[in-house]
Amino acid sequence: MADGKQSRPKARTVRGFRDRAAGELAAERQMLDTIRRTYESYGFDALETPFLEYTDALGKFLPDVDRPNAGVFSFRDDDEQWVSLRYDLTAPLARYVAENQQFLPRPFRRYQIGTVFRNDKPGPGRFREFIQCDADTVGTASPAADAEMVMMFADTLEALGLKRGEYVIKVSTRKLLDGVLEGIHLSDVPENAHKRGAVLRALDKLDRLGPDGVRALLGKGRKDESGDMTQGAELEADQITKLMTFINVVGERPHSKFDPNDNQRIRMIEAWRTSVRNSPIGMQGIEELAAIESLVTSQKYDDVRVQFDGSIIRGLGYYTGTIFEAQLKFDVKNDKDKVVVFGSVGGGGRYDDLVARFTGQKTPAVGFSIGVSRLLTALQMRKAAVAEAKPLVVVTVFDKNDAAHAFAMVRELRAAQIRAEAYVGTGKLGDQFKYADKRGAALAIIEGPDEQAQGKVKIKDLALGAELSKSAETRADWIGSHQAETMVARSELVAKVRGLLSRGH
Amino acid sequence: MADGKQSRPKARTVRGFRDRAAGELAAERQMLDTIRRTYESYGFDALETPFLEYTDALGKFLPDVDRPNAGVFSFRDDDEQWVSLRYDLTAPLARYVAENQQFLPRPFRRYQIGTVFRNDKPGPGRFREFIQCDADTVGTASPAADAEMVMMFADTLEALGLKRGEYVIKVSTRKLLDGVLEGIHLSDVPENAHKRGAVLRALDKLDRLGPDGVRALLGKGRKDESGDMTQGAELEADQITKLMTFINVVGERPHSKFDPNDNQRIRMIEAWRTSVRNSPIGMQGIEELAAIESLVTSQKYDDVRVQFDGSIIRGLGYYTGTIFEAQLKFDVKNDKDKVVVFGSVGGGGRYDDLVARFTGQKTPAVGFSIGVSRLLTALQMRKAAVAEAKPLVVVTVFDKNDAAHAFAMVRELRAAQIRAEAYVGTGKLGDQFKYADKRGAALAIIEGPDEQAQGKVKIKDLALGAELSKSAETRADWIGSHQAETMVARSELVAKVRGLLSRGH
Repeated sequence: MADGKQSRPKARTVRGFRDRAAGELAAERQMLDTIRRTYESYGFDALETPFLEYTDALGKFLPDVDRPNAGVFSFRDDDEQWVSLRYDLTAPLARYVAENQQFLPRPFRRYQIGTVFRNDKPGPGRFREFIQCDADTVGTASPAADAEMVMMFADTLEALGLKRGEYVIKVSTRKLLDGVLEGIHLSDVPENAHKRGAVLRALDKLDRLGPDGVRALLGKGRKDESGDMTQGAELEADQITKLMTFINVVGERPHSKFDPNDNQRIRMIEAWRTSVRNSPIGMQGIEELAAIESLVTSQKYDDVRVQFDGSIIRGLGYYTGTIFEAQLKFDVKNDKDKVVVFGSVGGGGRYDDLVARFTGQKTPAVGFSIGVSRLLTALQMRKAAVAEAKPLVVVTVFDKNDAAHAFAMVRELRAAQIRAEAYVGTGKLGDQFKYADKRGAALAIIEGPDEQAQGKVKIKDLALGAELSKSAETRADWIGSHQAETMVARSELVAKVRGLLSRGH
Repeated sequence: MADGKQSRPKARTVRGFRDRAAGELAAERQMLDTIRRTYESYGFDALETPFLEYTDALGKFLPDVDRPNAGVFSFRDDDEQWVSLRYDLTAPLARYVAENQQFLPRPFRRYQIGTVFRNDKPGPGRFREFIQCDADTVGTASPAADAEMVMMFADTLEALGLKRGEYVIKVSTRKLLDGVLEGIHLSDVPENAHKRGAVLRALDKLDRLGPDGVRALLGKGRKDESGDMTQGAELEADQITKLMTFINVVGERPHSKFDPNDNQRIRMIEAWRTSVRNSPIGMQGIEELAAIESLVTSQKYDDVRVQFDGSIIRGLGYYTGTIFEAQLKFDVKNDKDKVVVFGSVGGGGRYDDLVARFTGQKTPAVGFSIGVSRLLTALQMRKAAVAEAKPLVVVTVFDKNDAAHAFAMVRELRAAQIRAEAYVGTGKLGDQFKYADKRGAALAIIEGPDEQAQGKVKIKDLALGAELSKSAETRADWIGSHQAETMVARSELVAKVRGLLSRGH
């Protein structure tokens, strides 16, 4: 044939993308349903924007502000316009609000669960396609909206099965840092934008690089392990000292047990008030945090659940006020087998300028995003989201030209809410048992001519068999054996299957 | 500012794409959950492949075989390789099976629900991004697998609330048409591929263009209303006559009431047997249809639910055997306000060569795809999938610096499974009522200083108010009025709200 070997395409996923199978998907669906129910109970409505947006509408709001359009999959459509696969759900929301604002209630509250794409270098556990889960309130500057987000985030994690003390929502505000930056002559004017971006990114790396790494990035720059040089923010020595002092104040790690006479949030507010007392923007941040503190305290979200912490930076350039991050506090091993705290599973904050890109009018907004795969990993470690697979019954087919009996059995089983399939391949009985085994089926049903003559069916308990087979020479030996089999009247099939399946639960 | 009006991007969706809001999404989710449950009850497992695939792995299996890569969104990735947004879920499945076959049970049964993309000219109701819902059995040539698909399709439609007689699964086989094509010297060899493709597409248009249109497309071609010429298959007169005769035989419209003494499927098999009796491939098709008929009859799927119909063609080039289509039989108005039968909501068939593109080995497979938006439209017409929105309670905030009372109320309501939100905007009470109204809230709660002093709260019944307001001068008049208000003790809030909400259901 002309269509020979070398002309065949290779079957492989695109680099950085992966297939996902039933087990992971079931656990993820269970998790997303819980998140959705929580968001909806708070009055947020579902919205789905398209996967593609015009590139100019997405803007340049990726974390890496130095390479604005790097990280985005973009191409030209038929009309020669640049379009991009969405890289988050916030930029499309801003576009949606700008496009529809005259029809929307104000504030507008929506959630969106969807796949986003990053044209980044893939790595172990780092994919170019992943799911985010966002909730946003657009059109109000009230700190009540920020406080609500923080409380909803905590409620969501608890609805997912995390216990109090296993998570904490850390809260800060950009205005605080703005106050400090003002103090070192880096106020928020266009000519400082580049330097401020570099400062933000440097401070955001405290957890990963430690104080020395951050200090290097605030100064001339830092050489990483591979020898690559990261350009620094080029601050002067006294500017660096002031920022590092600020980090030390705000980086203070709070106690982990709740003491009603020593509210960590109030303590932090007092410390911060001193450090930004000469800055109007800093003091505005303090007032907003105080309003948030008052509301979450009134709803009994204590400082084990919600803490103030100035080392929370959130790398994104678009935040303008409150920022927050959900951190999981249990230990895990990292890829270098070192025990570390699990850390962030998502976060967000206040961004007042995204809609203004389109409309020219400031539209205050606050929201947060959950990274689904990281949170799922965490829940699975906590055994909080291992979806129980519904057990499967495989009905074998003795004579492949007479599958009617097998099909009748699966119909009866399904009518009783039991997951069941008749074998539709062309293999012999031995192959069918191997198939049932590979499928992870709980039971296999056999109705050969002998059974049929007696009005009976044989049930092979594959789960029990798997136990028994541990003593057999090989797995294949067992599959052909008669252990863990029961004979029942055909009319008793459904009742017996139900009994066997419920036994295991 | 330099960032003036003309530099702002325009807020708009990409042409052919659209945003989707809560109402549609809730109905769709309900529908997809039912489909998922049905597929899973049959033993199909979930699978999710990536949105992007290497273009060479997707192949050229779009309906329009004359423009192989037209219709696909493609671009080069960082490695200079061509990648494409998936245009269906079948080509990625073939890639997946080829890549993982040594690990998969055989047959391999999976379902996938996902968004696919077509770079086609958009039109009214015709989008470039839409959801498909596929189930496939890969690795068996047994007609039992085909019969199971047909029955599962029928079960799925009934699980969605369609009544018997409102839908029919029409079944045919490509082998029958192959038999007829053999008879007119167009057997399945490479040099006939182009002409056979044109014949398939022409026959597939019987419903839309009628016999004269099809005859034109089988011959020299056809001029459409806009004056555009579609190139024909250039068959000779006697070839066209034989095909049109075949269409007349197989196009015979069956009766719609079940008559156990006159099984439509057996009648069709007998008619077809005569028309392809000299063709081995045709006779093979007959035998396979007979096996399918026997199995579906044994499971009591009568000919009101499953019919044989040779006018079913399915445009795709990759089908090699059984083909089937689900048609909804109720009347709707088309975009020209003409009453037509609703028609197809999906279909599928047997394709034995898709995996072989990668492996060189034939891998028999059968599956089908449901077009989600068309089916949802149909179900909504049948009132079978109008998801009941959970009623919303909006708790107003009298003093925006003291939202704690409102937040406490919504927490209590949510704990009682009632969807509730506190107003987090900055508007006055009147704005808050307008907000609640725009949100479609059922109730609004007010606790002003007077109510608070009495330990009471006021409940405004917005649904009842909407009724009453019909007699008011303007909607705005009513919103400020005191109609449809109740005062209750604060401690009775949850019970009273529950009572008012349940009244409406």
